[in-house]
Amino acid sequence: MRLHHFVVAGLVLGVLAMPAVSDEGMWLVNDPPKKLLAEKYKYELTDAWLKNAMLGSIRLNSGGSGGFVSSEGLFVTNHHVAADSVQKLSKPGMDLLQDGFYAPTRDKELKCPDLEINVLQEIVDVTKEVNAAVKPNMKPAEAFAARRGVMAKIEQNSFLETGLRSDVVTLYNGGLYHLYRSKKYTDVRLVFAPERQAASFGGDVDNFEYPRMNLDVAFFRAYQNNEPVKSPNFFRWSESGPAAGDLVFVTGHPGTTNRLETLAKLKHRRDVTLPYTLARLRTLEAVLLQYSEQSPEKKRQAATDLHSVANARKAFSGQYQGLLDPKIMEQKKKAEREFVFSATEAKVRAKMREGPVDTRLFTLDDDILNALELIEATQTKLRAFEKEYALLETGQAFSTSLFGIARHCVRMADELPKKSPDRLREYRDSNLDSLKFQLYSPAPIYPDLERTKLAASLGFLTENLGGDHPLVKLALAGKNPATRADELISGTKLADPSERKRLVEGGKKAIDESKDSLIVLARDLDEEARKLRTRFENEIEEPERQAYATLASARFLIYGNAIAPDATFTLRIAFGTVEGYEVDGKKLNFHTTFGEAFDKHMELGGKEPFDLPKRWLDGKSKLDLKTPFNFVSTADTIGGNSGSPVLNRAGELVGINFDRNRHGLVRNFVYTDVQARHIAVHSKAVLEALRKLYPAAPLVKELTGK
Amino acid sequence: MRLHHFVVAGLVLGVLAMPAVSDEGMWLVNDPPKKLLAEKYKYELTDAWLKNAMLGSIRLNSGGSGGFVSSEGLFVTNHHVAADSVQKLSKPGMDLLQDGFYAPTRDKELKCPDLEINVLQEIVDVTKEVNAAVKPNMKPAEAFAARRGVMAKIEQNSFLETGLRSDVVTLYNGGLYHLYRSKKYTDVRLVFAPERQAASFGGDVDNFEYPRMNLDVAFFRAYQNNEPVKSPNFFRWSESGPAAGDLVFVTGHPGTTNRLETLAKLKHRRDVTLPYTLARLRTLEAVLLQYSEQSPEKKRQAATDLHSVANARKAFSGQYQGLLDPKIMEQKKKAEREFVFSATEAKVRAKMREGPVDTRLFTLDDDILNALELIEATQTKLRAFEKEYALLETGQAFSTSLFGIARHCVRMADELPKKSPDRLREYRDSNLDSLKFQLYSPAPIYPDLERTKLAASLGFLTENLGGDHPLVKLALAGKNPATRADELISGTKLADPSERKRLVEGGKKAIDESKDSLIVLARDLDEEARKLRTRFENEIEEPERQAYATLASARFLIYGNAIAPDATFTLRIAFGTVEGYEVDGKKLNFHTTFGEAFDKHMELGGKEPFDLPKRWLDGKSKLDLKTPFNFVSTADTIGGNSGSPVLNRAGELVGINFDRNRHGLVRNFVYTDVQARHIAVHSKAVLEALRKLYPAAPLVKELTGK
Repeated sequence: MRLHHFVVAGLVLGVLAMPAVSDEGMWLVNDPPKKLLAEKYKYELTDAWLKNAMLGSIRLNSGGSGGFVSSEGLFVTNHHVAADSVQKLSKPGMDLLQDGFYAPTRDKELKCPDLEINVLQEIVDVTKEVNAAVKPNMKPAEAFAARRGVMAKIEQNSFLETGLRSDVVTLYNGGLYHLYRSKKYTDVRLVFAPERQAASFGGDVDNFEYPRMNLDVAFFRAYQNNEPVKSPNFFRWSESGPAAGDLVFVTGHPGTTNRLETLAKLKHRRDVTLPYTLARLRTLEAVLLQYSEQSPEKKRQAATDLHSVANARKAFSGQYQGLLDPKIMEQKKKAEREFVFSATEAKVRAKMREGPVDTRLFTLDDDILNALELIEATQTKLRAFEKEYALLETGQAFSTSLFGIARHCVRMADELPKKSPDRLREYRDSNLDSLKFQLYSPAPIYPDLERTKLAASLGFLTENLGGDHPLVKLALAGKNPATRADELISGTKLADPSERKRLVEGGKKAIDESKDSLIVLARDLDEEARKLRTRFENEIEEPERQAYATLASARFLIYGNAIAPDATFTLRIAFGTVEGYEVDGKKLNFHTTFGEAFDKHMELGGKEPFDLPKRWLDGKSKLDLKTPFNFVSTADTIGGNSGSPVLNRAGELVGINFDRNRHGLVRNFVYTDVQARHIAVHSKAVLEALRKLYPAAPLVKELTGK
Repeated sequence: MRLHHFVVAGLVLGVLAMPAVSDEGMWLVNDPPKKLLAEKYKYELTDAWLKNAMLGSIRLNSGGSGGFVSSEGLFVTNHHVAADSVQKLSKPGMDLLQDGFYAPTRDKELKCPDLEINVLQEIVDVTKEVNAAVKPNMKPAEAFAARRGVMAKIEQNSFLETGLRSDVVTLYNGGLYHLYRSKKYTDVRLVFAPERQAASFGGDVDNFEYPRMNLDVAFFRAYQNNEPVKSPNFFRWSESGPAAGDLVFVTGHPGTTNRLETLAKLKHRRDVTLPYTLARLRTLEAVLLQYSEQSPEKKRQAATDLHSVANARKAFSGQYQGLLDPKIMEQKKKAEREFVFSATEAKVRAKMREGPVDTRLFTLDDDILNALELIEATQTKLRAFEKEYALLETGQAFSTSLFGIARHCVRMADELPKKSPDRLREYRDSNLDSLKFQLYSPAPIYPDLERTKLAASLGFLTENLGGDHPLVKLALAGKNPATRADELISGTKLADPSERKRLVEGGKKAIDESKDSLIVLARDLDEEARKLRTRFENEIEEPERQAYATLASARFLIYGNAIAPDATFTLRIAFGTVEGYEVDGKKLNFHTTFGEAFDKHMELGGKEPFDLPKRWLDGKSKLDLKTPFNFVSTADTIGGNSGSPVLNRAGELVGINFDRNRHGLVRNFVYTDVQARHIAVHSKAVLEALRKLYPAAPLVKELTGK
């Protein structure tokens, strides 16, 4: 940002640029786009509708969304969101992910080893309280600590007061702070999952593509005290589903967008972060594919890891192509320049309201320019240590869940004796139960798979930092990556949850005395890793947050609440129109049909990943092949929205969102609806499949009352 | 190399370190290890044996080795070497690579579109002539041009004199120059290839592994003037094959080893070149896999590209692990230090032979230390532009054969008007026929596949250099990689060989007038690409070559001819013992059997890549399951040796080398025979399969006379 302070007299005669009226926006539940909906769709978004949407929507902490679909705690999500739990419920010789599962009665439902779900109950704005803790002259480290401290206190007080899970959420990259209070359930049981071939027909090939024919759904039931949770706020299952042109809503938990980031930050993503991330994902994907090829059992073990890595690779590739599109960068550049002018103008107008002003004296707003320049300078600082930070502190050099476990054990020994506000944020009191629920999970761990991932990531570490780098020498301890991975995995007992518990409960002494290979590694690395974290917090996170807060204030001044905050894996509402689109002159219908799935199976010789399950091939004649299968709409979604209920005006569930098309991959940075669409399973398709192909009459009855 | 000039008095009392007596060495045919064989194996390597080995061995210019096995031009190589041609002979609906091929009569043999083979006839030492052209005070650019010029002249004179293909080969990285004269055949026809499932049972999983059960063989016949070539020097097919403990020889064309490189060069490989190369290969492998999954036809199209990329990725990964093994680096460091001492000592001894010398005054040899330091300094220079050089000048940013074609067309227009010695080396007169044979190949090109590879490599370019790099902007021309790849592939006519011919024959004018997208791209890039090439030649190649020549002279002084030169894809002879080895306490037999292939198929459920072809499953009962299938020996091989004849003392063919095990992957840098082995198809296995499974009686008769 090398703009200098031009005189902007005359600017105040201009009209403030307003965001275009489109279906853009992942809106806050406590600040919904009522006006926009009324104007564009003549739709009145009522408080009752909103309340039901909030209380019926579910966040799965394994990363995804869902919604209650009966008053008895039954909820729907995607098969690929459920996969993490379905995989953990499988074992050699019993592959529920591949073969599917159905519990016709409640006693047959399978309890997931470590699935936590949250249901949002209330949002409280705590911006003032958080900001008040940070004093103007604090150094970055002090400011960071003060903010972390006040957030932990607010959360703990809220938890003590309400008994609800309490999380302070940072919005607008630091412009607002909201406290989210949620009910939490950790007894979640699998009810139904189709075969993987039906759920992800087309596999990686068709991921982020359309037309699609996927039964990407699964059902769970939430329990409390061994009884199904009562869920009076649920979504009624629509027998008919959506029609072309319908207004629909998506409620869910979009993970991350970067739309409000500055141009300098996006260039940094393009030139540093994304190339690094893509290289890392390809490294992991390659070894997971090679591992999978070794035998059907190994393929089973690696299935969810492979899917999540391949999915991320494809999503980030799309983002990367987006940032390399000069049109998008030009659009961003223009928007940023206009923002500087508009912010200046808005401030001038504010002053003019106080009295007469000589507008000839105004120059582009210093605060905004400084904030933009600071963010740009921060990227140069980040460049100097970003890889080390990512590899060592975020653990990307050690791609095994066992290392994550080891690090938690080591750090809890140091952190838990401190007061909650002084701890690293993940160890704050209000988060400890959830953390331990994950940490002590009895989910199976396969040593060969962990060894393979660890060897690959240690290799990736050395590829990035070089064989003579001190951190590499520390991590490899005089071995090559393959030998070191063998040694680390065979020398750890952390696959056993009781050993983790013993170490955590034994505190600092147990950790210091441990000779477990991974505990020793995590211990040896911790000083360096913490240094990188502190450096990141003080040099990057805190200065950026303050600069973005400045930008956010200006944005509020210009646009009010007409721009939604970037996604933060918290509950949001999006809306859009059900409609097809054109590609290369060809019009794609807004929905696909069952028949198209069978056609594609035939056309490609029934070869993986285009192989329908036997149940489907055998049952083909029972199906109405014209039944709509998947459909698309313009609503604004992103990763994390997987499993989101798609609702109609009446609040009925007409679909389950499961993907977006490749044109939608740039939505991390800009919303577009020319071709970009999210993709959902049609509510009618689920009923048709459950009625005709699966012996799931009780489930259909619970959904429809019939 | 920060050694300083220690006084080395006393050193001259030591004994010169000699290389250990092992099976190390890819020996020159004109400097064979007769003494070593006599001492270690009591074997007299006769000139007649050598002559037959030389005239019977074949280099396939697609990258591999083979050997005549009848007097009628029939030769054997690996299926995976043949794959390039077999793939090019296939088309949609006719997949010879997958389904196999056999021509029972000569008129059914299929002519390969662009396979050239060479048979070495004679070697002439031209070191003096080459070195005489380079004067002591020449600048690097002058020295480089002078050497290139004299080599082109020697080659052209030799060609005019003998009519043979003539190549000056650089040995010992510049220590020696030999002129290789070969017969060249460009009418080569496919006779037999088994199904890919039989040839590479276990696929990528078992590549570089042992035990193995692969029928990795194919047969071709060389023709001249439409008649089978007469090949009186061929290898008789052994009916029995080798036994444990047998001495065997491997004759073939090992591609590249780096054993004589300095420690600084190896560190550069470890920290710069290999990480870059691995990232590049993973990028290509990922998109090729994704392409292959789209349909069976696309899988067919991408098969050989995918195999070659996966094979390279595995080989380089093994090299990388080797260089990260501190033991190997320590061994290299020690050897280099000892070399400096030994070189000093050898020079002192030489002086002492001339008269009395006060050895107390000697310091470590300056020439050697300077050469080592120069090579080290060169790596720092290389680091500054190696990626740009690799991406732009070697064309790794444009991974499509169409770009390679475009560049040749563009450069030939500039180079051909010059005198042969002044041209870029690949355009010297003596090479033009071979180059045009490749350039005008009618082999099929699949636009979708080329687009996919090009998009991936353009993405890799930007990942490495960043979106704002001038070369990236030049290459992308204001598009993102995907869009740019679409535009480039749809805008070129170079898939048509007649268009290539038109452009080459039209010379500079045709090129300047061309609006073909890839011609325009190659033209626009050429100035920058040539600059990078010149920089590489002058700053890296020439200084390194001179320094290595200094090191080579010292090495000759110390060891004489007891150390073989690094591999250069020219004919070499290796030898070793047929013997198994131990892994993790388990003894592996020196050979596998047919029975083990069927066992593995059953054990892994017959799932790809462990799926034997139908012909084998149906014919199992006909086979003697105890027949040896593959075997291993300690002989010294590397990539390029694929398809090499394995010969016994009598010069009979007892096997066809096709791989080495993972322990052998470090052989690029150090020879080891503790566990490292090359792997060959047993000669008996080929006969058993041909007799019992394939309707190939005429082929068996040609091989055995029966």
